[in-house]
Amino acid sequence: MASHFPVNKLSTNGAEPSDHYDREAMMMIPDQNDMGEESNLQVGEDFAVVEPKDEECSVERLHHLSKIVTQFQDHLRERASNYLGYPGNQNCSHYLALSTLLQFNINNAGDPFKKSDHGLHSKKFEVGVLDWFARLWGIDKDEYWGYVTNGGTESNFHGILLGRELLPNGILYTSEESHYSLFKIARMYRMDCETIASLATGEMDCDDLRDKLLMNKDRPAIINITIGTTFKGAVDDLDLVVQTLTDCGFSDNQFYIHCDAAISGFVVPFLKQVPKFTFKKPIGSVSISGHKFLGCPMPCGVLITRRRYINLISRSIEYIASFDTTIAGSRNGHSPIFMWYVLNIKGWKGLKQDVEKCRKNARYLRHRLKKEGISSMLNEMSITVVFERPPDNEFVRHWQLQCLGNMAHVLVMPHVTVEMLERFLYDLIRKRKTWYGKVHPPCLAEDVGICNCACAVHACI
Amino acid sequence: MASHFPVNKLSTNGAEPSDHYDREAMMMIPDQNDMGEESNLQVGEDFAVVEPKDEECSVERLHHLSKIVTQFQDHLRERASNYLGYPGNQNCSHYLALSTLLQFNINNAGDPFKKSDHGLHSKKFEVGVLDWFARLWGIDKDEYWGYVTNGGTESNFHGILLGRELLPNGILYTSEESHYSLFKIARMYRMDCETIASLATGEMDCDDLRDKLLMNKDRPAIINITIGTTFKGAVDDLDLVVQTLTDCGFSDNQFYIHCDAAISGFVVPFLKQVPKFTFKKPIGSVSISGHKFLGCPMPCGVLITRRRYINLISRSIEYIASFDTTIAGSRNGHSPIFMWYVLNIKGWKGLKQDVEKCRKNARYLRHRLKKEGISSMLNEMSITVVFERPPDNEFVRHWQLQCLGNMAHVLVMPHVTVEMLERFLYDLIRKRKTWYGKVHPPCLAEDVGICNCACAVHACI
Repeated sequence: MASHFPVNKLSTNGAEPSDHYDREAMMMIPDQNDMGEESNLQVGEDFAVVEPKDEECSVERLHHLSKIVTQFQDHLRERASNYLGYPGNQNCSHYLALSTLLQFNINNAGDPFKKSDHGLHSKKFEVGVLDWFARLWGIDKDEYWGYVTNGGTESNFHGILLGRELLPNGILYTSEESHYSLFKIARMYRMDCETIASLATGEMDCDDLRDKLLMNKDRPAIINITIGTTFKGAVDDLDLVVQTLTDCGFSDNQFYIHCDAAISGFVVPFLKQVPKFTFKKPIGSVSISGHKFLGCPMPCGVLITRRRYINLISRSIEYIASFDTTIAGSRNGHSPIFMWYVLNIKGWKGLKQDVEKCRKNARYLRHRLKKEGISSMLNEMSITVVFERPPDNEFVRHWQLQCLGNMAHVLVMPHVTVEMLERFLYDLIRKRKTWYGKVHPPCLAEDVGICNCACAVHACI
Repeated sequence: MASHFPVNKLSTNGAEPSDHYDREAMMMIPDQNDMGEESNLQVGEDFAVVEPKDEECSVERLHHLSKIVTQFQDHLRERASNYLGYPGNQNCSHYLALSTLLQFNINNAGDPFKKSDHGLHSKKFEVGVLDWFARLWGIDKDEYWGYVTNGGTESNFHGILLGRELLPNGILYTSEESHYSLFKIARMYRMDCETIASLATGEMDCDDLRDKLLMNKDRPAIINITIGTTFKGAVDDLDLVVQTLTDCGFSDNQFYIHCDAAISGFVVPFLKQVPKFTFKKPIGSVSISGHKFLGCPMPCGVLITRRRYINLISRSIEYIASFDTTIAGSRNGHSPIFMWYVLNIKGWKGLKQDVEKCRKNARYLRHRLKKEGISSMLNEMSITVVFERPPDNEFVRHWQLQCLGNMAHVLVMPHVTVEMLERFLYDLIRKRKTWYGKVHPPCLAEDVGICNCACAVHACI
């Protein structure tokens, strides 16, 4: 489907800090100092905010704005039909049933469990959602605390803050494959951070963790483990991390483990023979995203921790008659309702079906790539298929692939159909013939392991 | 209008960390470890997430969920009709025109000005909104950087982070009346913080600022000034703060000023003879909220800073082909469209009309309270009417008043009509007769100044 929406000429590289959008459009509101000169306004173009000509917004103007939004939606629809590399489920049409909620300004400011005089909140939905996740992760209602966040980064902010407040002199340990927010948090929180090496699968290298723990035995450890790394979908081995801590002589009150399950938090619980992440093990917090596998229309997430930890950061705020226990102040009141709705519609069985479909489709994609002699990898607990990076920015942009070094990946989310994968494979295989002739496809042995590499040297698969 | 929605028995005080909601409802998803025992599910009640009985979500179930949401909306409508104390504009019905956007999972991850391979974003709308605010605050397009945040707290996080990265050894100075996020940020960022006293108006006491600056002359100053304090709507005097810094011998490269304009950012620009906050003065960043005066349906805000500062915190993230310059990772793609839409509909003139209406209504409320002999205050640049705290929790809950010590306040937002104020005044005056007999109304002289106090001793107005 063609889009009439103006498409940027994008490139995968070369985004420089000085690259502003083209600014053909003039933005035409008066300067603060120009009060009273409002007749001096002009009409801008494009996406600039433009001052209405008349006293009231005219019907023509409403129509014009509506047209821009409609064209934008056509563009989104087209982009969603080729959306393969980013971790967002684009099956979102059921949220339209909640569209009338947009006429309300809903704010869940403060603690989800505290009563408040503020009436325009959705905290009962929020608690319903939190209870669901608490049960999923094996912690009793009276034992947990949590909230619906604005996404995985805010959830990580909260989890690591709890770790730091419990263990103020603690060092943050996180693998080189973990989400970029962890390194940002360490800088922002002024924490020392040890980056742990990873295996070819993307999993944390616990030998390296051991070495680094032993070098810092006099200081507590705050460990982030990733349930689904951003690029390879790898799952850090919680049991091995705990064992490593014990082997290195760290007792229970000398470490804190935060689990970042943004990507694979909905996948791992459905797998068999997989180390589970649960509060029955010595973890302090878990974060998950709501806009990834669940496909909520806007970024959101959940953070769950042990209730006894929350008093560490709680502050009473008299005028909102609540406790400031979260990172954000005002909090999105719509996203808990979106999460509540989709969990109620799908339920455990529906999510399981989604996971099974995604894993099947991911295996199919991996099989086809392998058959074509293309270096690729699919981790056991993952729906992320890693393969050689296409040397064609237009192709990468069209399929919205994420790229890292010599690798690209497809994240087989619930909206990714076999038909979409077939279109992608057809395009890839056809264009690949033009990419490689004088030059060979890159070697991915270091990135995904020799057995997954199909380069001229390692074509052993 | 009566609400069929179950209303909590709320109280203004006594929210204890252990006060969970009543949990009549059972949450009925299977534990991770109970895989295969899905037939063991029961149907819960209330707002719990409940496993669907059938393989697919039935029509009856969709109807049931829809009924819960409809009842919730009736409840919200009733609560919005008595919404006086919290800083949210409840005139939101025009956002319904954008309701079809809920079928898209939109994510503005990364820098608003960078091109990206990710297609489902609304960054052109976002830049349109940012340009509008940059012009409002007197900074050229090529000179500014900014983004649409999840609200005032995230904006403050960003502004103060820039200050700290510019001046790593800086002390944060912020008034005791500033938003609670500032003190949270100081703790999270491990910054030393000096709390500055305030005047009875709520404005920062620059004599106290001077004393504290002089005590710390060897370290840079990161100063938060508030454009509309949370409780009294006071506006800190930027010009006087700058003068105080100069008087104390702080040169331009020894201080950073962040302006938190969450509450009154849309009010002050329309006032005459008021010290303006603008980038033509030596400020580093400004934050404003989109869900307060503008009434966007979910918390959002804007942060604008000088472009030359942003490289301090920018990190290239290869796999999202963008720069991590914001606090959040994934970012709400809907809220920039809401802001863009309302700014286009209202324009400068429409906002000015809203401000004039709110100020007129605030003056009317203040006049009526004064006439009734009730202690009250309305700052010159404010739409917040402070008055004696009603000693009746049910009354406070009904009108959703914010309370602090002996004070309560009404925030006269655009949705507050004269009719709503009349209902409020009628209720207040009638009930007040029953509150005071043996006991007298509290003295508010220390809170709002002797001239605004109508207690038995200070009834000089």
